[in-house]
Amino acid sequence: RINGERLWDSLMDMAKIGPGIAGGNNRQTLTDEDAEGRALFQKWCEAAGMTMGVDTMGNMFFRREGTDSDALPVYVGSHLDTQPTGGKYDGVLGVLGGLEIVRTLNDLDIKTKHPIVVTNWSNEEGTRFAPAMLASGVFAGVHEQDWAYEREDAKGKTFGAELDRIGWKGEEEVGARKMHAFFELHIEQGPILEAEGKDIGVVTHGQGLSWTQVTITGKESHTGSTPMPMRRNAGLGMARVLQLVDEIAWSHKPDAVGAAGHIDVYPNSRNVIPGKVVFTVDFRSPDLSVIEDMEARMKAGAQKICDEMELEIEFEKSGGFDPVAFDETCVSAIRNAAERLGYSHRNIISGAGHDACWINRVAPTAMVMCPCVDGLSHNEAEEISPEWARAGADVLFHAVVETAEI
Amino acid sequence: RINGERLWDSLMDMAKIGPGIAGGNNRQTLTDEDAEGRALFQKWCEAAGMTMGVDTMGNMFFRREGTDSDALPVYVGSHLDTQPTGGKYDGVLGVLGGLEIVRTLNDLDIKTKHPIVVTNWSNEEGTRFAPAMLASGVFAGVHEQDWAYEREDAKGKTFGAELDRIGWKGEEEVGARKMHAFFELHIEQGPILEAEGKDIGVVTHGQGLSWTQVTITGKESHTGSTPMPMRRNAGLGMARVLQLVDEIAWSHKPDAVGAAGHIDVYPNSRNVIPGKVVFTVDFRSPDLSVIEDMEARMKAGAQKICDEMELEIEFEKSGGFDPVAFDETCVSAIRNAAERLGYSHRNIISGAGHDACWINRVAPTAMVMCPCVDGLSHNEAEEISPEWARAGADVLFHAVVETAEI
Ligand SMILES: NC(=O)NCCC(=O)O
Ligand SMILES: NC(=O)NCCC(=O)O
Repeated sequence: RINGERLWDSLMDMAKIGPGIAGGNNRQTLTDEDAEGRALFQKWCEAAGMTMGVDTMGNMFFRREGTDSDALPVYVGSHLDTQPTGGKYDGVLGVLGGLEIVRTLNDLDIKTKHPIVVTNWSNEEGTRFAPAMLASGVFAGVHEQDWAYEREDAKGKTFGAELDRIGWKGEEEVGARKMHAFFELHIEQGPILEAEGKDIGVVTHGQGLSWTQVTITGKESHTGSTPMPMRRNAGLGMARVLQLVDEIAWSHKPDAVGAAGHIDVYPNSRNVIPGKVVFTVDFRSPDLSVIEDMEARMKAGAQKICDEMELEIEFEKSGGFDPVAFDETCVSAIRNAAERLGYSHRNIISGAGHDACWINRVAPTAMVMCPCVDGLSHNEAEEISPEWARAGADVLFHAVVETAEI
Repeated sequence: RINGERLWDSLMDMAKIGPGIAGGNNRQTLTDEDAEGRALFQKWCEAAGMTMGVDTMGNMFFRREGTDSDALPVYVGSHLDTQPTGGKYDGVLGVLGGLEIVRTLNDLDIKTKHPIVVTNWSNEEGTRFAPAMLASGVFAGVHEQDWAYEREDAKGKTFGAELDRIGWKGEEEVGARKMHAFFELHIEQGPILEAEGKDIGVVTHGQGLSWTQVTITGKESHTGSTPMPMRRNAGLGMARVLQLVDEIAWSHKPDAVGAAGHIDVYPNSRNVIPGKVVFTVDFRSPDLSVIEDMEARMKAGAQKICDEMELEIEFEKSGGFDPVAFDETCVSAIRNAAERLGYSHRNIISGAGHDACWINRVAPTAMVMCPCVDGLSHNEAEEISPEWARAGADVLFHAVVETAEI
């Protein structure tokens, strides 16, 4: 069994970097705080005897040697970046859970046949630079690196330039590493495990996602002196599209969700009718055809709304991935570990996207989930109990060690 | 008659300061660009032989002496600040029209009995610091100066600190000046004069305004893993309120307008359900009871929407003024001037708020309007013709000179 107290202490130490304003974290990707978090993680990994590799996307890899120098490593990890008002566990638990595995192996003086590599993937959250899971996506060959480098944040800074600036652009070719398997531990970010009193979620599938950036263009004009019939109010057009997004998601209940989290209004002045609004619609489902149906209905309906209001509308795909089925052997390793350790568990579909969803394309992959309070995530109040963290890391430990072979 | 070419040249010279991105201006109040615009105006006024006074709200007053040292001055002016994506004429025409009057009096070597004071009021637009017409409001005793100093922009900078920073906080007590009359020339910012082919709008009334800042609070959570029934989506709540605002304004057609120009979403991340949304509802009508009815229905309806969605909602009054009836003698001076000069004219109600609306409380006041292309304002594409500007300034000249007596 892993050392739950040590794991918790490390979680708390990492949470000191990039503190939020309400008890959580703001350690967004490629900020100074991200660099500080990476340095602390490096210090810990090197103290545990691992050696570092960093690729050209800033993905970090810490290797513990195996007894068979020809055997491909078992990878384990997640991400250290957070939402702007994020929690202390989303991503971090999976990275530090990986580190805890190695620390425990060291304590027990156990050598595995396959090397073990603990990984921190860059820009999983996708808030600062869309899309989410950007660097694991490049690793898995889903995106071109040059395209990834050109992603811009709200201030027009690029991923490539910011990676350079914080000093974490490595030399290693991204995606060159071959994996025996990849495991990721993550908090559920949903309410199911807690509600059912299960310790462990055995993640069999991940739901798919589609992000569409919508730009509605009307005409800036005075809120006082423009008569109602002459208005071309892009903000009102957006309001009607947001309502439509909600109706469409409900129409597929319970297997779909939809919302817009990102909304920018121009020129955003109290007495100017919005001339332009940019927002991102997020649709998800475990069923690809449902996602496609929601997308198509949203576009057709939004176009109709805008035609009637004499507004222009444009759609741009800004992120997405298809639903994922994880590797059966790896999934079984997790289920078996939970069973062996006596933790209650159930199969679960991940509602969120994860680096594991991309890595699954290039290596046998699976995920372990632990509950989180009220299913709340992407919120500074995100909370888990030390017992949940310990159980998740225990299962991760057993699955990884079984796969890496003693 | 005034010199239309000289007026136009001055308008174009002022427009070089704080250029926009699409041919208009971004010379928001108390920015470096505002300071630069003020300095140019000062240079011109002093070259025309006027002497400057600046009050503690940064209002600028340039005085041309009259022949009777006991006579109260006739004031004329408007504002030099612009919207973030504003036009070249909104406000500026009224200030430089005032300057042009003095230049013309100098050319013709005419002395008036009453002194003439050309004025630039601080922060008319209200975009950076709400409410609009802030400094003329303090002058007229509507707001306390200390309260005005504490108004914050989106970055948390205060009006008082920014006025100090740009070096335009004067010594003169605000509101101490007594006026014989006040005249303001302004572009219509609406479509009526152009549509009817009239040169001049004789402004008899100004419609009233109410700004309500609405804060809706839900719960930040993950857009992927939060089931639809568990969401408390503040952005969706806002969408429904925006729709309601529109319906309410239409229900009073044609004598009311309503919209929200300012919308901020938190944390504004693509994969976080908005936990908080702040937006400002702008309702206007020439009829106070209509404004009150719209306000009351919006608040009740929005409360109901939010109750049903388990959202919290708060309302805060962030600006407002009652409908205004201008001084009959001053209005007649304008109508007579238009008549005498042979310009086509009609009575009009101002759709926008103006400094004149506040000054009307402390001095006999009236306004002249000239048409603007497509009724478009608060847009960089705002346009007027040199002929319209000339006609407006001619009428202003005659009304002011008649009131100041030769
Ligand atoms: N786990 C997580 O929140 N990832 C971000 C990508 C997503 O929005 O699902
Ligand atoms: N004239 C003008 O646009 N003033 C700003 C105040 C308002 O919104 O009416």
